[in-house]
Amino acid sequence: MHWVKALGLVVGATALLGLGIILGHFAIPKAADSRAPNPSDLQDLDLEILQAVLGQLDASRIRENLRELSKEPHLASSPRDEALVQLLLGRWADSVSGLDLAKAYEYEVLLSFPSSTQPNRVEVVGSQGDILHSFRPGEKNLTGEQAGPDVIQPYAAYAPPGTPKGLLVYANRGTEEDFRELQAQGINLQGTIALTRYGGAGRGAKAVNAAKHGVVGVLVYTDPADINDGQSLPSETFPNSWGLPPSGVERGSYYEYFGDPLTPYLPAHPSSFRLGSNNVSGFPPIPSQPIGFEDAKDLLCNLTGPSAPASWQGALGCDYKLGPGFQPDGNFQTDSQVQVSVYNRLELRNSSNVLGIIRGAVEPDRYVIYGNHRDSWVHGAVDPSSGTAVLLEISRVLGTLLKKGTWRPRRTVIFASWGAEEFGLIGSTEFTEEFLNKLQERTVAYINVDIAVFANATLRAQGTPPVQSVIFSATKEINAPGHSGLSIYNNWIQYSNRTSPVYGLIPSLGSLGAGSDYAAFIHFLGISSMDLAYTYDRSKTSARIYPTYHTAFDTFDYVEKFLDPGFSSHQAVAQTAGSVLLRLSDSIFLPLNVTDYSETLRSFLKAAQQDLGGLLEQHSISLAPLVTAVEKFETAAADLGQRILTLQKGSPDTLQVRMVNDQLMLLERAFLNPRAFPEERYYSHVLWAPRTGPVATFPGLANACFKAQGTDSSSEAWAEVKRQLSIVVMALEGAADTLRPVADL
Amino acid sequence: MHWVKALGLVVGATALLGLGIILGHFAIPKAADSRAPNPSDLQDLDLEILQAVLGQLDASRIRENLRELSKEPHLASSPRDEALVQLLLGRWADSVSGLDLAKAYEYEVLLSFPSSTQPNRVEVVGSQGDILHSFRPGEKNLTGEQAGPDVIQPYAAYAPPGTPKGLLVYANRGTEEDFRELQAQGINLQGTIALTRYGGAGRGAKAVNAAKHGVVGVLVYTDPADINDGQSLPSETFPNSWGLPPSGVERGSYYEYFGDPLTPYLPAHPSSFRLGSNNVSGFPPIPSQPIGFEDAKDLLCNLTGPSAPASWQGALGCDYKLGPGFQPDGNFQTDSQVQVSVYNRLELRNSSNVLGIIRGAVEPDRYVIYGNHRDSWVHGAVDPSSGTAVLLEISRVLGTLLKKGTWRPRRTVIFASWGAEEFGLIGSTEFTEEFLNKLQERTVAYINVDIAVFANATLRAQGTPPVQSVIFSATKEINAPGHSGLSIYNNWIQYSNRTSPVYGLIPSLGSLGAGSDYAAFIHFLGISSMDLAYTYDRSKTSARIYPTYHTAFDTFDYVEKFLDPGFSSHQAVAQTAGSVLLRLSDSIFLPLNVTDYSETLRSFLKAAQQDLGGLLEQHSISLAPLVTAVEKFETAAADLGQRILTLQKGSPDTLQVRMVNDQLMLLERAFLNPRAFPEERYYSHVLWAPRTGPVATFPGLANACFKAQGTDSSSEAWAEVKRQLSIVVMALEGAADTLRPVADL
Repeated sequence: MHWVKALGLVVGATALLGLGIILGHFAIPKAADSRAPNPSDLQDLDLEILQAVLGQLDASRIRENLRELSKEPHLASSPRDEALVQLLLGRWADSVSGLDLAKAYEYEVLLSFPSSTQPNRVEVVGSQGDILHSFRPGEKNLTGEQAGPDVIQPYAAYAPPGTPKGLLVYANRGTEEDFRELQAQGINLQGTIALTRYGGAGRGAKAVNAAKHGVVGVLVYTDPADINDGQSLPSETFPNSWGLPPSGVERGSYYEYFGDPLTPYLPAHPSSFRLGSNNVSGFPPIPSQPIGFEDAKDLLCNLTGPSAPASWQGALGCDYKLGPGFQPDGNFQTDSQVQVSVYNRLELRNSSNVLGIIRGAVEPDRYVIYGNHRDSWVHGAVDPSSGTAVLLEISRVLGTLLKKGTWRPRRTVIFASWGAEEFGLIGSTEFTEEFLNKLQERTVAYINVDIAVFANATLRAQGTPPVQSVIFSATKEINAPGHSGLSIYNNWIQYSNRTSPVYGLIPSLGSLGAGSDYAAFIHFLGISSMDLAYTYDRSKTSARIYPTYHTAFDTFDYVEKFLDPGFSSHQAVAQTAGSVLLRLSDSIFLPLNVTDYSETLRSFLKAAQQDLGGLLEQHSISLAPLVTAVEKFETAAADLGQRILTLQKGSPDTLQVRMVNDQLMLLERAFLNPRAFPEERYYSHVLWAPRTGPVATFPGLANACFKAQGTDSSSEAWAEVKRQLSIVVMALEGAADTLRPVADL
Repeated sequence: MHWVKALGLVVGATALLGLGIILGHFAIPKAADSRAPNPSDLQDLDLEILQAVLGQLDASRIRENLRELSKEPHLASSPRDEALVQLLLGRWADSVSGLDLAKAYEYEVLLSFPSSTQPNRVEVVGSQGDILHSFRPGEKNLTGEQAGPDVIQPYAAYAPPGTPKGLLVYANRGTEEDFRELQAQGINLQGTIALTRYGGAGRGAKAVNAAKHGVVGVLVYTDPADINDGQSLPSETFPNSWGLPPSGVERGSYYEYFGDPLTPYLPAHPSSFRLGSNNVSGFPPIPSQPIGFEDAKDLLCNLTGPSAPASWQGALGCDYKLGPGFQPDGNFQTDSQVQVSVYNRLELRNSSNVLGIIRGAVEPDRYVIYGNHRDSWVHGAVDPSSGTAVLLEISRVLGTLLKKGTWRPRRTVIFASWGAEEFGLIGSTEFTEEFLNKLQERTVAYINVDIAVFANATLRAQGTPPVQSVIFSATKEINAPGHSGLSIYNNWIQYSNRTSPVYGLIPSLGSLGAGSDYAAFIHFLGISSMDLAYTYDRSKTSARIYPTYHTAFDTFDYVEKFLDPGFSSHQAVAQTAGSVLLRLSDSIFLPLNVTDYSETLRSFLKAAQQDLGGLLEQHSISLAPLVTAVEKFETAAADLGQRILTLQKGSPDTLQVRMVNDQLMLLERAFLNPRAFPEERYYSHVLWAPRTGPVATFPGLANACFKAQGTDSSSEAWAEVKRQLSIVVMALEGAADTLRPVADL
């Protein structure tokens, strides 16, 4: 070969080899090498998967779940409750649509039941103790579902046994103010039985307030004005409408705290330390019993004494009087008394949580928890089975993708079916006590869907500020039920909205009390939490809650006929919760917008300045440190928001993402102070602890000011105001610190 | 060209191109692509850097640091203390050897000082109140350094002002037992002044115990038997030996808690809530004053009454009697009393911590904190300047590498110079209060080097079990001072060792009380902590502590002449602490061996079974749940150890490492329970809280059993035993849970 040709070949060959090397190096992506991150580490939320999940959430399957879940009463620790534990375990261990792991966790908890041999009674008795009238022990069997042996008689759980009798008085809602009003009217409350209506004060609080004034027994009923928009005839109520029938009675826990009453701060294992009966607190101090408005009418419309104030009147069709005792021309003799016979018993019972887990592919040590309770008072089709029906449908869809191998979340997803919620959020609270450390270290957020559908008008969401953004993102992409063509978000904003200084008009996110199983997550563990449901058009009803709440009329038929025919609202909640869940589990950057806390803090601060500032100044207490703390938080949060935007535009590595996500996840923890409210069991979150008094500001400050008002500047009460101010300043500054660049002090 | 040839060329070219592609793809490492980890993410501890650091830690520079730091007294909040704040800021902001960031954090804290106008006095007074003898107000000026205006008069910080007088009694070490012994001997303590010696009980505890028995004032001295191996003559003591001179007086804080007394659980900012004087607790209840043994001898050797028990005798050269009052033939009239005049004043003062930061390259949100206090009682050459001299040398060497660009730690390193430690660990405690959340979330470990060199025989290390392994690894690689040729580890094991069921004979790691600034880190925040120093050959001295502790004789010359000529022990401590620091900051896998906690738990369990089991059984309390909990912990810890080994052998990605490291870092937090010991301020660690009673087991259990002994099974005291048992079981099970695979429940 000629040397030129040979040279040409060599050059050509070299060039080709070189080209090959270049191509090989740059054009072909390297397979994951040993310590390089798994490609899935960089996988963000997959919108196709999200769409697929939303598309597969099936209203008819939710309906079938609900039918199965609510076909029998499933009171906590009852055989049917245990059967549902097995049902859940079966679903979550299913080979086609199950999860990675499913397990039941049993606790031994103190529940309260009516006696099986001596039913609680309410009677009118004559002066000789002769029974003049007995009220019905339970609800009328209107649909064939109100009479079975598993339908528990209406009662006030944890109300003590006893058979007090006395003249009857009417005490409106049984608030402290109501009893003061009665005393102001000159009514002698000593030894009386107080008839009260639901609402205004907690169930147990009515008895606590009553006992302080010498009342010896409490009756509680639901006024048709508060639940049925005034309607009270059988023809106007279930099964002829969604209204509460005259015999319907709201059962409920009258326990003032939450968690197992005998094991505060300890998981209720059989071997755990239990409080002795002398040391248990939070039970009603006097016998209490709920009754239907039919029976309440018999009592109330026969009372004597002065007329009750206008705001105390209801829809029973008579002028409500205050008592004490009955009027001369009524159904009962004037000297008759009311006797309340309560035979409730406390029992240690086994109650289980069921947990189902999908292990995270990339960050298995980050948990998104989604839960609802399982136990009901009777059939509990709405409460809680509507939520459980949704839960099971979401877990089915995700489980199916998982078993097919098409999807695994970035983070670990934990589904939970809590036990004994109706008695005081017991299962979820014991769970937080047992797994305290790992939950606090690792949980990204808690999603609660208890009653999924109260009514079918609009979404209702409650939560702490960081979850607002993810709920908004999810609901903007999902169609509202019905034919409006609106998104859930755009429908929602029509029913409940506010003007945010940052965003303008937006749907209004409610704040979290302690009404369901999120309580221990947010108040005790400081985990960002939310509660989702579909609910009322408030222009159409003023019902306190859906009318058959905690009665034997809360049945599958009730849901199907009156609350959500077609189950499209259930489906909407499933889609919303499912989307929120996936966004939290799969987004590379956690969709928790911590800057939204700035708006809350600013509004709390403003309220403190406007409504407490003058009072504080009189006692030489300055809000300046609080102003500074809020400003520090605002700056730190805004700066973090900017850093995240910059990171998102750039190419952050997995550790950078993790570090920022830890800041987002742990922010809520920074608001906890276990020493802030020593007398409030479990409440440690300095922004969301219960607030008394009218000022919508930091609860510790508000409550302390409320107590200190009228005392001398040198009082312990004003010292407590100063202490609470320092506690909230410390929390806000500490929270701001956690948001700053991590290596700065 | 012939087609065959052409084909050959094409084939050849294709082959070459292919070869190139293959080479390019497989043989050339890909440059870090956008979201791939930075190469330094995978950089483990660099042993060359470690060797370089250890080699550069220079004894003569430590000596120079010490000379500068100790040249003047630098009592907390004094001008010289403030000057040292500036010195530290200057060193850490230096352009050649400084850190990334240096900043002072000031707090307004309650300190206690003797009056500048009315010196505290101890006098013998006659029955008419006439002064028969006055003791010296301060130490003799033996080296020219004991007389300056900045040498603070000996006093008992936080002892209340007052001028009690009474007959003198001798109360040994002032323990509760000692006072009971006096009463048993028939000594009437009412209205007496008690002379006690240091040791046995905390400083403040002596006054607390005394007051309970009617004693009105307390004197405290150091017996030559306890500090000088019996020697007491001027010729036998400093400046002629390391011994305490006859006039030497140990100052100290008599405050029973730690942290700023007015702001428990809140950072002591000027605007923070402060307790009113009625609500402050922990101060001695009666005036107290420390004196030298020269003066103590005058008092003690003139006492009347029965001879003190043998174990109460000391080395003052006479038979110690109990009193009350003086003997007939002695120096003082028999009816003379002792008057203690204390004029201490409480003052709000500014005190600063200085923090210096090296930002982590890979995990800036993980902190390794290394600290020591800055304030002394007088010159404080040993306490604390020996530690600060070491701290400054370590920060210089690391700062130099940093500024040169040759090194940056994987994790953030924080150096700290704490203020006002001598008054009760105040600066470090306020720091933990201010930065509570970020410190708990992010701190890997806290290293404390307070007194670096007590004596020059051997290393002494205290810490929680997870730090044992990293201290062992470090000390095996460093030569001990002197010519033994032994490693620090092999030297240490000769002086202090134990037989571990796991490792056989190993050096003995002490546990952490609350003697220095690690207290808030371990007890309040649950951060794995350690304290490092060089110390005594216990076969050569029984001194309670180095003899000039807290006296005006703790000077540079004292260190240079008697404690560590050549500063090689200082260098050894610097190398040990430096190596531990680098291993913690730079190792990919945190060198915290959590399995070593299993050994502790097993030994605590064994002690409970052997020494409390019978008693518990009598009261129907079973240790079975505790046995189960310990077993669960052991299994979980061993399994995690195996998983880490497997990971280390494989090629873990950065997230896998991070997740495991989080488990290691956060284990210690799982032992915290802020509700376990409500009456023990800051103590929340259920394994290391203070323990009373003789059984070396879980402190809550031990203390509760100690109190319950002798009471009825149904007593509240036995209920508390059960509660404490449940608390520790819950902590161990919770801790085990955090060690399990992260996606299992």
